[in-house]
Amino acid sequence: MRGPCNHGVETDPSGDPVNTAVPQTEDAGAAASAGPTDTLGTSAAQARSAVLEELIRKDPGRFRVLTGDRPTGRLHLGHFFGTLHNRVRLQELGVELFVVIADYQVLTDRDVADNLLQHVEELVLDYLAIGVDPARSTIFTHGAVPALNQLMLPFLSLVSVSELNRNPTVKDEISHSRQSAVSGLMFTYPVHQAADILFCKANLVPVGQDQLPHLELTRTVARRFNDRYGAGSAVFPQPDALLSSAPLLLGTDGTKMSKSRNNAITLAATADETARLVKGAKTDSERHISYDPATRPEVSSLLLLAALCQGRSPEQVAADIGSAGAAALKKVVTESVNEYLAPIRARRAEYGQDRAHLRAVLSEGNERARAVADATLAEVRAAMNTCY
Amino acid sequence: MRGPCNHGVETDPSGDPVNTAVPQTEDAGAAASAGPTDTLGTSAAQARSAVLEELIRKDPGRFRVLTGDRPTGRLHLGHFFGTLHNRVRLQELGVELFVVIADYQVLTDRDVADNLLQHVEELVLDYLAIGVDPARSTIFTHGAVPALNQLMLPFLSLVSVSELNRNPTVKDEISHSRQSAVSGLMFTYPVHQAADILFCKANLVPVGQDQLPHLELTRTVARRFNDRYGAGSAVFPQPDALLSSAPLLLGTDGTKMSKSRNNAITLAATADETARLVKGAKTDSERHISYDPATRPEVSSLLLLAALCQGRSPEQVAADIGSAGAAALKKVVTESVNEYLAPIRARRAEYGQDRAHLRAVLSEGNERARAVADATLAEVRAAMNTCY
Repeated sequence: MRGPCNHGVETDPSGDPVNTAVPQTEDAGAAASAGPTDTLGTSAAQARSAVLEELIRKDPGRFRVLTGDRPTGRLHLGHFFGTLHNRVRLQELGVELFVVIADYQVLTDRDVADNLLQHVEELVLDYLAIGVDPARSTIFTHGAVPALNQLMLPFLSLVSVSELNRNPTVKDEISHSRQSAVSGLMFTYPVHQAADILFCKANLVPVGQDQLPHLELTRTVARRFNDRYGAGSAVFPQPDALLSSAPLLLGTDGTKMSKSRNNAITLAATADETARLVKGAKTDSERHISYDPATRPEVSSLLLLAALCQGRSPEQVAADIGSAGAAALKKVVTESVNEYLAPIRARRAEYGQDRAHLRAVLSEGNERARAVADATLAEVRAAMNTCY
Repeated sequence: MRGPCNHGVETDPSGDPVNTAVPQTEDAGAAASAGPTDTLGTSAAQARSAVLEELIRKDPGRFRVLTGDRPTGRLHLGHFFGTLHNRVRLQELGVELFVVIADYQVLTDRDVADNLLQHVEELVLDYLAIGVDPARSTIFTHGAVPALNQLMLPFLSLVSVSELNRNPTVKDEISHSRQSAVSGLMFTYPVHQAADILFCKANLVPVGQDQLPHLELTRTVARRFNDRYGAGSAVFPQPDALLSSAPLLLGTDGTKMSKSRNNAITLAATADETARLVKGAKTDSERHISYDPATRPEVSSLLLLAALCQGRSPEQVAADIGSAGAAALKKVVTESVNEYLAPIRARRAEYGQDRAHLRAVLSEGNERARAVADATLAEVRAAMNTCY
């Protein structure tokens, strides 16, 4: 059984870019994209996000971001351009990052859970490689933070079973399989996510559109807790969603980019592995290369990838290639990706040599998260008048 | 909204004595008593309990009991003869007791939650008064033990939503009100109870018959955890239910004894308050006093109460009174109860003078529970290979 959420970004086959930072589900992404993409909620969130970006530029110190991933393996370029580089951007702007490795959200995925330590270390390696700075940002596993997990209990008291049933992921899982396939952990996952976000009083959460309902539940929990126990003051912020535009990147087979489909270029791949993957990528028989996502999705996705790596527009990349055909396109893509990722991969290899350092990064992050969670729980217990 | 469980014993209007140690619900008690009382499960549990009693006498040191109450107010004689005196009996036999004050299970009962500190202190006072010895037994509030609460997460992953829906309390609540009235906390309550029991690896839980399904879920969680993560050895025991025969005590109005009905004699009541309550107790017009629970439930309940206090049979008490009528019966009951409770009440008054001591008892109990929970969580995290 898949856990209730999938890490990082997944580019959706139906054409919606799904940018996410907090764990999400592939299925929920697909479900969300089946509906209208310009729902009022999304439009409002987009408008609000523009305002937030302005506020971040003016005063980054007032923001604390919670973001993270499920430790299911190595991150790929879809994750990178969808969410990872945005985290580093926020960090560099001066925003404080808390990056949760959601180790308790993969327990029901046995293949993953059996190699958890390795998956967690791979994730830390990816973070360090892309530039998450443990001196400024806190990387932690929520399984190592008891006071965070305890917040589940008061939060569960503020949410009804009906509200939990409305979670699109749970609804989807029940309709696709059956209720007995939904674990109590999956069912209560949005409440655990509220604990992930609120334990550090994050006031900003970079999310994909499909994550808006989950974040709305976190906001509801925060609001209800404040109303019930705040005695006029807010114990928790109601965190804002920061929607960012994510590029549409397909996997090399033209379908959704996903580790499990073996169609994704991971950050950790070698230059040769990258070349091999790109070489096998699906294209079309038209020799003239043009950027047209609607009619030429595979070619356009490759162009976009090269463009993102080159810092240019996909149309410019296409114009350079002209009528040189798919082989030339693939050569450009391979070179662009390998050049772009070279420093990231070099750092990754370097960090990978020093497992003790990885452990230390995580250990210090966990320690910092525990201190923050202990302080928040103490405040929560005081607000609830349960300090004896 | 009532929480999912009610503390202590409640004598059920339909006639079933319901002995409980872990929190239970009034409604679930009523539901259980509507069915056959000799279900196979109950018979088997009774037979097993007899074996357990023998094992306890032979080697009390091999048992650790988890028991407890929701902090909803002062305990009464129904609680005392139903469960409290059994705890002290076990303690005196040499069994180690962990007594949980289930403070997180009253959060949705606003009247209770708003006076939680007072309710918790009253409960500690009652425990000390009846002879729970904090030097040998651990009195704690689960809200003060983060590592216990963290166990909720892995445990939730081992239980399906279907199984949670089968909880009689939840079913009952949904049928009596509606799903939106069931909080996530109530819904997941049996899993939290599993954490209460398993954090200290209790292997014995004194329960009422209606609590058997809840304890069965705890056993299921323990078994599944061991199967999934134990690598051949058992991290958790599968705790045994210790069913004990509870006397049928009605409230003074002839209905179920319950604090909320104002028909119960609390341990804390004064001798005068006791006399007043007994004087107003419902009886019948037959002057000859006889013990016949089926046809004379009110008179029989009063006889039983006097008998329990005197350490005699209700028939003997009845014979002494003969045809002296209800007034004589009430005089006997008042005197018996007041004499029996006098030393308990004296101790209660004494402890009540020293709130600092109460706080210290709880603080030390919480500290001990935290140490135990931290050790168990460390073991759990190691078994799950989530130590980073």
